[in-house]
Amino acid sequence: MTDPGADAHLRETCVSSEELARGSFLKVLCDTVALPDGGTATREYVVHPGAVMVVPLIEEPGEPLRVVLERQFRYPVAQVMVEFPAGKLDSGEGTQFCAQRELREETGYQASGWVRAGVIHPVIAYSTEFIDVWFARGLTAGPQQLDRGEFLEVFTATAEEVVAWCLQGRITDAKTVAAALWLQSYMAGNWTPAWGPAVELFVEPASE
Amino acid sequence: MTDPGADAHLRETCVSSEELARGSFLKVLCDTVALPDGGTATREYVVHPGAVMVVPLIEEPGEPLRVVLERQFRYPVAQVMVEFPAGKLDSGEGTQFCAQRELREETGYQASGWVRAGVIHPVIAYSTEFIDVWFARGLTAGPQQLDRGEFLEVFTATAEEVVAWCLQGRITDAKTVAAALWLQSYMAGNWTPAWGPAVELFVEPASE
Repeated sequence: MTDPGADAHLRETCVSSEELARGSFLKVLCDTVALPDGGTATREYVVHPGAVMVVPLIEEPGEPLRVVLERQFRYPVAQVMVEFPAGKLDSGEGTQFCAQRELREETGYQASGWVRAGVIHPVIAYSTEFIDVWFARGLTAGPQQLDRGEFLEVFTATAEEVVAWCLQGRITDAKTVAAALWLQSYMAGNWTPAWGPAVELFVEPASE
Repeated sequence: MTDPGADAHLRETCVSSEELARGSFLKVLCDTVALPDGGTATREYVVHPGAVMVVPLIEEPGEPLRVVLERQFRYPVAQVMVEFPAGKLDSGEGTQFCAQRELREETGYQASGWVRAGVIHPVIAYSTEFIDVWFARGLTAGPQQLDRGEFLEVFTATAEEVVAWCLQGRITDAKTVAAALWLQSYMAGNWTPAWGPAVELFVEPASE
């Protein structure tokens, strides 16, 4: 994308890598890196497979734009959080496929129109995680298919409410606040998504 | 803030907690939690002291609104990232104090006007981290005071450019994209900050 020699005065390179922890969910590495000035330092970080977020739009003629949101208890922050549907990529899974799967599993909705808004990096200091941001429209309701141990509520709000809740502090999940920037730009006509179709989902037989 | 009995159908409670890893930077816990349905599950997460981000505004009569940004190589994502100044809270440190300290250390700027926009949670699935979002104005330039092993470039851009770069994918740092929502709302007159003064910074003698 850019000249590989560019930013040599900022770049760090890996000297060695060791595993600090491997849980059932989190893998943590500690790398020794060479600094731009020739010194060394250590960098500790979570290795993450990447994730997707879906902003599901409900567009009815003559009605204000609405979106589908979730309320879910998030243990590390000890709060019920309002957020857009999201989830981790399965091994080898494409991000649109994952977006469609997560939307269907968590909310029951399927969508006929899909567009990738972009990507965000939620925690650049200590995780490799990226979140691909997808918008969906043309929703059809269906049954949720939650994982065991997953508890969440699905509800809808106007896009205006979502932006206001971000500014007021009722929504503090960073990925959802970031999505509100696209949402606000979409409403203002400053972002014109190039909608595409859904990809075909392989429907697995129920595993239990 | 809310009825503690509310959301009982979503809440998880700690049964036991064990340390999965303790690096020099990251502490990772694995808690066993009781689920709303009486089952149990494990939650692995990083324990973080909290952080601040500063959106430094340059407001000149007759000129478009500008902001101060940084370019910094972020090892976990292996990229030079464009981001607003940010940093972790020191033990016992207030968030405005931290915001003023980080702004001065990383960019050299001191600001006469400060306002807290809100808080964001960057990684609700696996970290306790919060980021307090501060806006600053009335900037006076001075020397950077970077930590050893910290390499970054400071530059300015218009607020319009920042919003456009977020939508185009040139800025992908989630906290900076989130800040762009406040910035866009500020420019549109939809967010009216209640500016306050700087707090007094204790200036430590140079440590080396």
